Amino acid sequence: MKGLDFVWEEVKVELDKDSYDILIGPGVLTNVGEDLKNKFPASSYFIISDSNVSDILGEDLLNILKSEGLNTYLLSFPAGEASKNMDTVVSLARDMVKKGADRKSLVLALGGGVTGDIAAFLASIYMRGIRCIQLPTSLLAQVDSSVGGKTGVDIPEGKNLLGTFFQPKRVYCDIGTLASLPRDEFINGMAEVVKYGMIMSRELFEILEGNYPEILNLEPELICKIVTQSCSIKADVVSKDEKEGGLRRILNFGHTVGHAIEAASDYTISHGCAVSIGMVVVSRLAIIKGMFSEDEFIRLKNLLDNLGLPTKVPANSDTKTLIELLYHDKKTIAGKINFVLCPEIGRCFVTDKIDVKEVEEAIDSCR
Amino acid sequence: MKGLDFVWEEVKVELDKDSYDILIGPGVLTNVGEDLKNKFPASSYFIISDSNVSDILGEDLLNILKSEGLNTYLLSFPAGEASKNMDTVVSLARDMVKKGADRKSLVLALGGGVTGDIAAFLASIYMRGIRCIQLPTSLLAQVDSSVGGKTGVDIPEGKNLLGTFFQPKRVYCDIGTLASLPRDEFINGMAEVVKYGMIMSRELFEILEGNYPEILNLEPELICKIVTQSCSIKADVVSKDEKEGGLRRILNFGHTVGHAIEAASDYTISHGCAVSIGMVVVSRLAIIKGMFSEDEFIRLKNLLDNLGLPTKVPANSDTKTLIELLYHDKKTIAGKINFVLCPEIGRCFVTDKIDVKEVEEAIDSCR
Repeated sequence: MKGLDFVWEEVKVELDKDSYDILIGPGVLTNVGEDLKNKFPASSYFIISDSNVSDILGEDLLNILKSEGLNTYLLSFPAGEASKNMDTVVSLARDMVKKGADRKSLVLALGGGVTGDIAAFLASIYMRGIRCIQLPTSLLAQVDSSVGGKTGVDIPEGKNLLGTFFQPKRVYCDIGTLASLPRDEFINGMAEVVKYGMIMSRELFEILEGNYPEILNLEPELICKIVTQSCSIKADVVSKDEKEGGLRRILNFGHTVGHAIEAASDYTISHGCAVSIGMVVVSRLAIIKGMFSEDEFIRLKNLLDNLGLPTKVPANSDTKTLIELLYHDKKTIAGKINFVLCPEIGRCFVTDKIDVKEVEEAIDSCR
Repeated sequence: MKGLDFVWEEVKVELDKDSYDILIGPGVLTNVGEDLKNKFPASSYFIISDSNVSDILGEDLLNILKSEGLNTYLLSFPAGEASKNMDTVVSLARDMVKKGADRKSLVLALGGGVTGDIAAFLASIYMRGIRCIQLPTSLLAQVDSSVGGKTGVDIPEGKNLLGTFFQPKRVYCDIGTLASLPRDEFINGMAEVVKYGMIMSRELFEILEGNYPEILNLEPELICKIVTQSCSIKADVVSKDEKEGGLRRILNFGHTVGHAIEAASDYTISHGCAVSIGMVVVSRLAIIKGMFSEDEFIRLKNLLDNLGLPTKVPANSDTKTLIELLYHDKKTIAGKINFVLCPEIGRCFVTDKIDVKEVEEAIDSCR
């Protein structure tokens, strides 16, 4: 990274073909122009972001790329999950055609998870696929949705029902953007970071335990470290299971119950908060099964508390509703649910040998 | 093919991964149930066809599969190129969700090129990709669009601008369906068969020359032979160039000029007729360049005439308009057009060393 006075962390995502790098650090966006120009020459660059991010960061990035002499356009769509549909994709595609996008153009997905999903899906089908680079700006997008190659949009019948597996050519995580976004969004993303610690890295978990005040203060070195470790874990899992055969299921730790909690709240509870509660519930379930210690359970709960994440099942989500939602999820095969359980902090396994009574008990004891 | 009293021809499409077979013969559709049941078990089968084909063949196929005990649904959309858009795809996807389609479901694309493009695109993005089997019913779809893995829909700014590369698991070409479709559609498809002869097989060309009356009478053995040879040639080209690197361009013989003629007529001239005229124009161009003989040119023209295909540039397409359309095609790079020329029947090469004056002369001498 010639000419830059800091070091970007690099995580390699190894795939059968089309392996790619994640670059992490402060000031990545400010310095991305030269990198794109040298490594990803294109006939034109299309920055795609939502209406919020477009104003905060989109214009800046547009100017940065233009100042490098790159033929760049900024396209945006209304912020929010409601935009994650095919109409948005078609509308962006039409704008791209009008601005002369061809097979040598490149899509730059600048924003959170929704933007990443829409923009990468668009890139994957535009003229049967053009290159896409992810520039995730929220913590959740940096540690989760920008790694893994899942793209998609919603239809009224369900989320992410139309999409592709499509790998980005590169991911640039500028940790400086985290400060420009709402604090709640940052805390939400921390639930996924805790998840990575729980399933794969006692070391990461202990960094979080020992440094949560500095993390909440967005201390760059620490943020850089936890984003890098999270991406490494996800990259490792995705490398081994690119299209959801089996291993990738461990990334669902806390998510199975979390999704039910989200749905029961009619999506008034954020994904991160729901995952936080979900992790507590399945850890309680592991205790009930005699597989997890009360001591480590308390450590998990304290960490989530300290990060400002919820740890109790909401009073207005009754157990019966949650159980129904759980057992009617699209991933449920023949009434069996796969749960990811941690026998200790930093290790996990998948099991479907859980009785519905045990799930009920776990939910009830987390109120 | 146990229990069947005829032999299906087989063409293998060899790809890096996901190679597949094309099965060709009379009565393929009637006998497809057992084959699907044994080789492609699925939680449910979704036959997708347009409103015309749905009535003629869709209901029959639905009953055949149901009689094998397969959980099958028939979905249709209004016939015509105007349906080839994202609204049709989303509407079909929503129907599939409502009928319980999951990741183990299978899409059966029953119909012509438009149906194949829509249904395969839908399959490629439904829950990030489910299996698709092509059941092309028109000659054009059998020899061209069902082989090659290109899927897509139109947007107002252009045709096929959104799509994927997505290989079917198998292609079943029932040559019996050709009799149930309008004669014009059959003759249209013959233009592509002539093309395969011109670019790759003098033998195929001579079969057409020697047997056109029987072919126009849909004599099964001959139809089976020409469909098989055409699919073999396309399969061979696609195997060597899955994603349009270079070789695949030879399939554009007659198409570059043909597309301009289609566009100049505002799509009142069919694709097949336009390709027929296009082949005559570029063969004249080859003569102008001193690369093709007048004798073989006359053989091509006579064959097209005998098949009922047009060989003259329409009076209402003026040369200036055609030249403009040619040089503004999306595949035009820096004003250079790639032309596929045949130095003799059965061989071809790609060249961009053609002067616009020569193209004008070729067009003018084909009026």
